[in-house]
Amino acid sequence: MFTIIAERINMTRKSIREKVWKRDADFIASEADRQTKAGATHIDVNAGGDPAKEVDDMRWLTEVVSKATQLPLVFDSTNPKAIEEGVKICNRDGTIINSITGEKARIEGILPLVKKYKTGVIALTMDDNGMPEDLQGRVEIARKLVKIVESEGIPLNKVYFDYLVRPASTNPGQAKFILEAIAVTRKEFPQAHIALGLSNISFGLPIRNNLNKAFLAMLIGAGCDGAIIDPSEPGMMSTLLSAQAVLGLDEYCMNYISAYREGKLK
Amino acid sequence: MFTIIAERINMTRKSIREKVWKRDADFIASEADRQTKAGATHIDVNAGGDPAKEVDDMRWLTEVVSKATQLPLVFDSTNPKAIEEGVKICNRDGTIINSITGEKARIEGILPLVKKYKTGVIALTMDDNGMPEDLQGRVEIARKLVKIVESEGIPLNKVYFDYLVRPASTNPGQAKFILEAIAVTRKEFPQAHIALGLSNISFGLPIRNNLNKAFLAMLIGAGCDGAIIDPSEPGMMSTLLSAQAVLGLDEYCMNYISAYREGKLK
Repeated sequence: MFTIIAERINMTRKSIREKVWKRDADFIASEADRQTKAGATHIDVNAGGDPAKEVDDMRWLTEVVSKATQLPLVFDSTNPKAIEEGVKICNRDGTIINSITGEKARIEGILPLVKKYKTGVIALTMDDNGMPEDLQGRVEIARKLVKIVESEGIPLNKVYFDYLVRPASTNPGQAKFILEAIAVTRKEFPQAHIALGLSNISFGLPIRNNLNKAFLAMLIGAGCDGAIIDPSEPGMMSTLLSAQAVLGLDEYCMNYISAYREGKLK
Repeated sequence: MFTIIAERINMTRKSIREKVWKRDADFIASEADRQTKAGATHIDVNAGGDPAKEVDDMRWLTEVVSKATQLPLVFDSTNPKAIEEGVKICNRDGTIINSITGEKARIEGILPLVKKYKTGVIALTMDDNGMPEDLQGRVEIARKLVKIVESEGIPLNKVYFDYLVRPASTNPGQAKFILEAIAVTRKEFPQAHIALGLSNISFGLPIRNNLNKAFLAMLIGAGCDGAIIDPSEPGMMSTLLSAQAVLGLDEYCMNYISAYREGKLK
């Protein structure tokens, strides 16, 4: 199954932040519902508007979103207290914590929660030395994180790597490293998953949707089994279903054909 | 540069066959013009309607198409006489013969023309034992063809491999072998090119365009540098430009941005 983490409920976006601070539960619930209906498997919840309010905002968001959808949530924060506040309220099967990195403080603060609540965890390939631009740097951090996670007794199928996509406009050639990192992951750690925040690829370019769709298809071609996207963005789910049908990941293309019959494909 | 061989002028299609036999030059010229304007780098010309008429039909088609476009043509036939009839009329820089295979008769009949007229050549991975379904069989034929072509003094940058795409609906998992064959080609024969007839992937499925676009993006992600497509099919050129921009093959994304400014992207 492809992991589709819906990205819209994120307080670093101004429109969401304002609605959360007004405690507009209907708006947030409708965002959760829309992404669920569009085909999400998880709903990301990011309460990172104001560090001083983050724990309270995460509690409120978790209560609202968990009522609006039956999907597992992804608790997205650098603050262990905010994450624990959310996961205490809603720890459904499939829950993910977003994220650890190779940074000492992140590992020490967040990995105990992954262990305690038996959640999945997104692992970003950055560490105390920064965000590597090349393939080798990404893969080295991934290997280091695998060792740490395994030493804590967390099974690798709970880990979702995010290789930190850079914009194609400013960092040409980065996408190739991402595709290669996925191939390395599939080979070295076949139990581990991928959950890439992919829309950064199109930052600064016109009609971002074109680039997001093309990148999604090639990621799936390279063996990627998950992404952080907006499933309600036009054509994203069509592209995902098409890519899976093309590759034979969708047995007898039945998901593709069903989506067509239900009028879900353009 | 990505090789875009426009596939529409093909007499195995009934609508084209009828127009050619009526000697409807305006219709054929408009097909050539439409594909040229859509972004083709080459126009395929297939006169395979009736073997008894193929040489005459190829002569007429070549005369009409070569007046309608300044692009090089791709002479597409199993009949060496028909190919030579075309290439004698129009042998522009970039001309390609479509195709040789590993079959003895095809090599003996067609490779001398490639040598004599210094054209490019499409190499299909099939031989006297049939069309291999697996990666290994495709790669073995490719290696065998490389040896034959090089022994004739033909440079490898004149060769365009077509790994013979099967429909996803009936041959699930074939696309993966194609992606892997491309990676092998890039590694073992970096000078050689790819020119895949990709639309077969969606045979028998609804909204074939969705599958063609997703497959094109993942092919480019895997290192494919050419395809036989209909460039006027909606979204194909947008997908191609997007995939190249994503991968940094389009410096500073200038082709993508130019296409946007010219209103060529949806």
